[in-house]
Amino acid sequence: MISKLSELSDLVCSQKKRRQLVLAVAQDKHALEAVCTAASKGFVEPILVGDAAEISTLLQSLDHDPQKFAIEDLKDQVLAVERSVRLISSGQANILMKGSCSTSMLLKGVLNRDWGLRKGELLSHFAWFGSPFYHKMLGVTDVAINIAPTIDQKRAIVENAVDCLHRLGIAVPRVAAIAAVEVVNEQMPATVDAGALAGMNRDGVLTGCVVEGPLALDNALSAESARHKKIGGLVPGEPDLLLMPDIEAGNVFYKALTYLSEVSVASVVLGATAPIVLTSRSDSPDSKLNSILLAASI
Amino acid sequence: MISKLSELSDLVCSQKKRRQLVLAVAQDKHALEAVCTAASKGFVEPILVGDAAEISTLLQSLDHDPQKFAIEDLKDQVLAVERSVRLISSGQANILMKGSCSTSMLLKGVLNRDWGLRKGELLSHFAWFGSPFYHKMLGVTDVAINIAPTIDQKRAIVENAVDCLHRLGIAVPRVAAIAAVEVVNEQMPATVDAGALAGMNRDGVLTGCVVEGPLALDNALSAESARHKKIGGLVPGEPDLLLMPDIEAGNVFYKALTYLSEVSVASVVLGATAPIVLTSRSDSPDSKLNSILLAASI
Repeated sequence: MISKLSELSDLVCSQKKRRQLVLAVAQDKHALEAVCTAASKGFVEPILVGDAAEISTLLQSLDHDPQKFAIEDLKDQVLAVERSVRLISSGQANILMKGSCSTSMLLKGVLNRDWGLRKGELLSHFAWFGSPFYHKMLGVTDVAINIAPTIDQKRAIVENAVDCLHRLGIAVPRVAAIAAVEVVNEQMPATVDAGALAGMNRDGVLTGCVVEGPLALDNALSAESARHKKIGGLVPGEPDLLLMPDIEAGNVFYKALTYLSEVSVASVVLGATAPIVLTSRSDSPDSKLNSILLAASI
Repeated sequence: MISKLSELSDLVCSQKKRRQLVLAVAQDKHALEAVCTAASKGFVEPILVGDAAEISTLLQSLDHDPQKFAIEDLKDQVLAVERSVRLISSGQANILMKGSCSTSMLLKGVLNRDWGLRKGELLSHFAWFGSPFYHKMLGVTDVAINIAPTIDQKRAIVENAVDCLHRLGIAVPRVAAIAAVEVVNEQMPATVDAGALAGMNRDGVLTGCVVEGPLALDNALSAESARHKKIGGLVPGEPDLLLMPDIEAGNVFYKALTYLSEVSVASVVLGATAPIVLTSRSDSPDSKLNSILLAASI
């Protein structure tokens, strides 16, 4: 069981699998830097698809020899995305990472019906946090892709994350379906959804995990706070995963922790035939490397 | 200008006003403890309304002499709330605090049309955070009362908080209207509302502050993140107030910071003729005392 993100590298090394990472539209300094670090440690073998001249110049500026990298020269971003995705669907690579193209351009390629990477019902974002204020890793979903998911979409979001947590060694992840309060209230749809998801879990429709909710964040994270409210169950104080009610709550959670506390974080897009790394320029170098490691671990 | 919550006590002492705090349904050990601490430091003069026998027993258990307290004996909780509220509306006290009754019972009294404390358009919750990861105090609203406020209700929520920040010495508070992304997107109503509120501010409909938005939390809190996204303005990196899109996002923000980071926090309900302190059992003693001090300061 991984208790901090720094242990991901041991997990990746112990698996002794070759992992080819395609960086789509690779002429992005920050993404390249993270990929070079991961490659130099032997975590992944990179394939860089994009404007070869720009990529070479950036590699040199990062003190890397372009000759040592597999580079495919495609200046057109749409074509570079297609080639990157096809490298995955043809089995030549198994992790997709976004370079300097937009997220929507990359996901459009991923979702292409002919040559894309469609698998389950939807794509969803999964973040995995290590915090000095929590005793184990804490997964959070979905903070970035699904805006206002329906109950069925929330079920699929949980399934994506639970599948990922299984691969990370957590046999029966404990899932807190988060709302602003811990009782179902028709005026607060997030509480209704959370209660319904817990019901699906009890009824065997949503399996491989324990889902409880609605829980407010305090009684999800703290067994003591839950006891104050007379809330029992297996999840309070012990969640492996927080299901956020919508993108606003999820996004605020993710950014509150990354900007106003001391956490380490990795994130990945789930639900395609391969994990997708979507870091942004404002992510720290550590979080970019952690995200590559997370993608390589699952 | 207050840069940390511990300076609130200096502000209260410097104002040299008498402040009577009514604790409604005062037989609540944690609330009593905070009130006794505030009284012993001279911040407030308490009036304890509720079951006098229980209150006396609790005071003794906290090593306080019941004889030294103004206690009004009303065993019935509804009557105790009414008496507490009437003490404020008649001018005999100027801060209302919740004891062992429910929040809804207290607010029902506050909103009573005959003897309540109605003033503006709505009541709203205001939290004031000190974080080692931010260079000044950070206000957040509304994390607890208004579930899914309309644009007009959000305007009233901002007005309540801005009025409070003025009293705390911030002449022109900078307000970030938060959403999950920083561009208006019709599919994300929070971004539409945030853009409309910024427009109301530019048009002079929402005054006494600078409102910008939509801002995602990263580009609200960090000028560097905003620059990455080419966002200018007076608010990025400098907000005094975050307007949360709804109760889920607000509640998650408040609890993420209080449970997964090192913050100090005070909170108060605004929009009535007197500030209202609504602490809950799971709040720390420090945060209860801070909330009393915040109510005494405004």
